[in-house]
Amino acid sequence: MREQEDAYGRLLLDHLEGRPAQEIVERDDGFIAANQGPAAYFAPYGSWPSVERRAMRYVRGRVLDVGCGAGRAALRLQERGHELVAVDISPLAVEVARRRGVLDAREVPFERVDASLGIFDTVLMLGNNFGLVGSAGGARRALRRLHGLTSARGRVVAESNDPSRTDDPAHLGYQKRNRERGRLPGHLRLRVRHRELATPWFDYLIVSPADLEALADGTGWRPHRLIRDEGSLYVAVLEKA
Amino acid sequence: MREQEDAYGRLLLDHLEGRPAQEIVERDDGFIAANQGPAAYFAPYGSWPSVERRAMRYVRGRVLDVGCGAGRAALRLQERGHELVAVDISPLAVEVARRRGVLDAREVPFERVDASLGIFDTVLMLGNNFGLVGSAGGARRALRRLHGLTSARGRVVAESNDPSRTDDPAHLGYQKRNRERGRLPGHLRLRVRHRELATPWFDYLIVSPADLEALADGTGWRPHRLIRDEGSLYVAVLEKA
Repeated sequence: MREQEDAYGRLLLDHLEGRPAQEIVERDDGFIAANQGPAAYFAPYGSWPSVERRAMRYVRGRVLDVGCGAGRAALRLQERGHELVAVDISPLAVEVARRRGVLDAREVPFERVDASLGIFDTVLMLGNNFGLVGSAGGARRALRRLHGLTSARGRVVAESNDPSRTDDPAHLGYQKRNRERGRLPGHLRLRVRHRELATPWFDYLIVSPADLEALADGTGWRPHRLIRDEGSLYVAVLEKA
Repeated sequence: MREQEDAYGRLLLDHLEGRPAQEIVERDDGFIAANQGPAAYFAPYGSWPSVERRAMRYVRGRVLDVGCGAGRAALRLQERGHELVAVDISPLAVEVARRRGVLDAREVPFERVDASLGIFDTVLMLGNNFGLVGSAGGARRALRRLHGLTSARGRVVAESNDPSRTDDPAHLGYQKRNRERGRLPGHLRLRVRHRELATPWFDYLIVSPADLEALADGTGWRPHRLIRDEGSLYVAVLEKA
């Protein structure tokens, strides 16, 4: 990832160094919005959303932290004694995670995670990071790949955002167009923008719990636990079938 | 202004009706940022920036409120007994201002303000709204036009943002390119985005106090008072020469 493309990492670095920063996410239909703000990427465990705190109980053994960002999950797991490899596609996110104390943070895109990182007991995709699978096909390929990178007691702890829990006409229209194209409704095409920087466009999948379970079918994983509340965010825990 | 173009007005309406909303401003070099948030457009007098509160002492008589937005200045001036016409290019901003109690809010772009609105004692361009003149030439044309729309004791109370008060390399680079093109350094080309909406691109001028005084020269206006503090925002009060 080139420096001008690292909008997300620069945002984290700006926040770390006390400069005002607000993440802007643009969708390929022109919909654009500012996120809640980068502080959430730095939040200590105690202020995480309740579904994320509950999900952490299912993390065991050696952990792959996918899309580590500023390292909030990695830092929590390190404190609790887990061996851990944290990966992120963003060079500046990796720098921020290291500066905050993550011991093994590496610049690796999710698609490039392979056996060179070793075998994991838990693959953690917190903060909606199941989205990084990108599409229905990408989800199946990723789950099969992770099956080969995990131990017999391997788990995937994957957070997503249920796209059916919206009544926003702009989102419902986007979902409808996706269905008409044979895509899952929550197959988003996004880029992150921050100041003069913009990431390349990337696919990002948000998916209902039922669709996530259907995607896992035949990949060697089966649903073990679903953690949700009244909100749209939830965490699915998968175990080996 | 078509409905899909009224990003700014929709933002105000969303905030008024309690929906989350954050203004995003995009510059033609790709620089993009989320503003402080729409609450500032609704702020009561007591929480305005100090230069704006001080500037209000110079408002007298019948007032033209240029770019009234959600009507914060108009409401303050109505309370204090001023006769007032509030104008904004945004239909939804005008709707919001009316719903909040502005008695005479009209959908009129600044360039179309003419004698049909009557004669004013004060032309108020608060909230950085001197920017609506767009360019150096636009500033001179606007000031000459306002001269003909104001009484003998007419004043222009104009807020701007001093572009020399930045050390941000992205802004300094933009200013340098403007100078190379024979433009004032703070001649911005912008659009406002909010959700699926985007305004057309428009010129917006931010200018130093010295450049603003130079622009006024020969237009029938002379500097009367400069109100500023350690920040980059300031208000210039012009009187008839």
